[in-house]
Amino acid sequence: MEEQHDALPAWQVERWLNGPGPATLDELRGRLVVLHTFQMLCPACVQHALPQAQRLHRMLPREQVAVLGLHTVFEHHAVMGAAALEAFVHEYRLTFPIGIDRAAPVGELPLTMAAWGLQGTPSLLLFDRLGRLRLQHFGHLEDLPLGLALGQLLVEPQPLAGATAAPAGAPVAPPAACDDHGCAR
Amino acid sequence: MEEQHDALPAWQVERWLNGPGPATLDELRGRLVVLHTFQMLCPACVQHALPQAQRLHRMLPREQVAVLGLHTVFEHHAVMGAAALEAFVHEYRLTFPIGIDRAAPVGELPLTMAAWGLQGTPSLLLFDRLGRLRLQHFGHLEDLPLGLALGQLLVEPQPLAGATAAPAGAPVAPPAACDDHGCAR
Amino acid sequence: MEEQHDALPAWQVERWLNGPGPATLDELRGRLVVLHTFQMLCPACVQHALPQAQRLHRMLPREQVAVLGLHTVFEHHAVMGAAALEAFVHEYRLTFPIGIDRAAPVGELPLTMAAWGLQGTPSLLLFDRLGRLRLQHFGHLEDLPLGLALGQLLVEPQPLAGATAAPAGAPVAPPAACDDHGCAR
Amino acid sequence: MEEQHDALPAWQVERWLNGPGPATLDELRGRLVVLHTFQMLCPACVQHALPQAQRLHRMLPREQVAVLGLHTVFEHHAVMGAAALEAFVHEYRLTFPIGIDRAAPVGELPLTMAAWGLQGTPSLLLFDRLGRLRLQHFGHLEDLPLGLALGQLLVEPQPLAGATAAPAGAPVAPPAACDDHGCAR
Repeated sequence: MEEQHDALPAWQVERWLNGPGPATLDELRGRLVVLHTFQMLCPACVQHALPQAQRLHRMLPREQVAVLGLHTVFEHHAVMGAAALEAFVHEYRLTFPIGIDRAAPVGELPLTMAAWGLQGTPSLLLFDRLGRLRLQHFGHLEDLPLGLALGQLLVEPQPLAGATAAPAGAPVAPPAACDDHGCAR
Repeated sequence: MEEQHDALPAWQVERWLNGPGPATLDELRGRLVVLHTFQMLCPACVQHALPQAQRLHRMLPREQVAVLGLHTVFEHHAVMGAAALEAFVHEYRLTFPIGIDRAAPVGELPLTMAAWGLQGTPSLLLFDRLGRLRLQHFGHLEDLPLGLALGQLLVEPQPLAGATAAPAGAPVAPPAACDDHGCAR
Repeated sequence: MEEQHDALPAWQVERWLNGPGPATLDELRGRLVVLHTFQMLCPACVQHALPQAQRLHRMLPREQVAVLGLHTVFEHHAVMGAAALEAFVHEYRLTFPIGIDRAAPVGELPLTMAAWGLQGTPSLLLFDRLGRLRLQHFGHLEDLPLGLALGQLLVEPQPLAGATAAPAGAPVAPPAACDDHGCAR
Repeated sequence: MEEQHDALPAWQVERWLNGPGPATLDELRGRLVVLHTFQMLCPACVQHALPQAQRLHRMLPREQVAVLGLHTVFEHHAVMGAAALEAFVHEYRLTFPIGIDRAAPVGELPLTMAAWGLQGTPSLLLFDRLGRLRLQHFGHLEDLPLGLALGQLLVEPQPLAGATAAPAGAPVAPPAACDDHGCAR
């Protein structure tokens, strides 16, 4: 039973580092999903987004929240292949599952990045327990608004066993974090 | 109608800086309350807690969240009086309401700090929309766990008009932020 | 034998914290002197300049370099007196000698600050082994240009015993640190 | 005329990025040389050493100080080749000359790194105006002790035209920065 409102097609992952990784988002139903897309040669990813992802992975209960990375290479393809990424992940001691976005037969953009219309790296996507996309952010999102968004998703009612799909959840942030009164960034 | 489970006695504020300030927590019913207790000569307060409070005050919608400070002086009383605090607040450009905890007739601890059993400064207290204490933390709490806790409180059901008191809410964090899987600090 | 070119009048220190302190700059002849002027309620002083001064005091050989503070209060006089400064110095664990600039009989500016024409706080002054002012900087000076300036002064020839005054030394920085090619700040 | 005391053999650079680069250290005679050795997948290099090198390159007069990088790959060779380094240098906007240490016919260590006995990355080497090695440091060296060392070298007497080699200069730091009184790191 798929959410009708869920416009995002399935991700296209060539392979996963740090373990097998989930085949689809559906596998993670019942848990929140924090997905960081990045490139290993993107300075803002290396300095801000990936340390934050690692911090989340360490801090949050795994049975409630899945932290994932997605390597969406759209430039310098020759030097950001799987072997390069493996060395990078090893040296930076990243331990959460990291998928490699499948290269397109033609063109620079990998398949998932293109299908989801991502603007660049780093990008952050939050999915609720029903697999619905609730936040998408291009660029680094500070800890405070990210925590606010995740906290809101954490206490939403659990999906009921056997129930039909809940109506689409409203976006959780920046609403709370970024309004007329100011913004985290 | 007071929450029976609410063990915290009312604060004892000598006077407020940055405006009149709420007389009691009850006045803020319907909004979340973030209360930072501090001393103006406490390095961790100056470096971490107060900039975070100012950030929250700027970022969050005021009709949903009230950010307050409470100056709980328990040492160096002679040099942390109201005039000194005013100069400090002016120089550090703090704009949220800051109350001065009332000095005790005898002893070092001011009245609210003593009544609430606070361990020192900085201390952080989060109250939900019903005025119930949901988080109390001694020392600086990082942005991520604080955001997680606030986000959870933000989406809790609103108190129903005319309804009797809801059962006491469970603590919101560090549960989510600090468990067997790790901790923000 | 006083340097004729040395335009700075003697400092006017009410009293010293953290030990007796030097009565005059002449007492420190043969050592470099790093003098940080500050106010205890000046945010840039607290966040940047004073931690740097403490770092220098810890790092450099005392027989070669004297690190000093000078509390030059030009505002909020009532709440930045000696007792307030003592509490501040204690809480921030500053251990280098700190003098209190003598208040003027009339006017806001203390005597040394006025006599030296300092623009505000923090200000940094470097004196060479002959007591000549070689660098004066208003605002925080980053570690790299400060290190460059101090390093240059450290290896200048020592004053010869019995020799007459050397010609005035050229300023040491920002020349090296701040020129057409860029600037540390 | 080569310094007899100069134990360091010439560097072995495969090719230079960001311009032609100096063929030998002798070409830079008369200028100080700051040489940062690094690997593009070494976190401490990326976070600390390379930003510092770029800062120095921007701040110091080029006719007095030459800032150079040397990519000394001793692990993950397959993914840290010249093309990968070029992409890295482009993305991190490094603009100083960067040489690629020549790979050894056998073994992991590149030729210059092996010949110079470097312990790892990052390593920092300072050469004076006569091309003599005056400081060698494994790990990140903070701005303050680096500035102290460079400042000392900047004001050493210039080599006299036609003069024979001066006696070996004493090491400049950590002596000043790291002695019984403490250490920068």
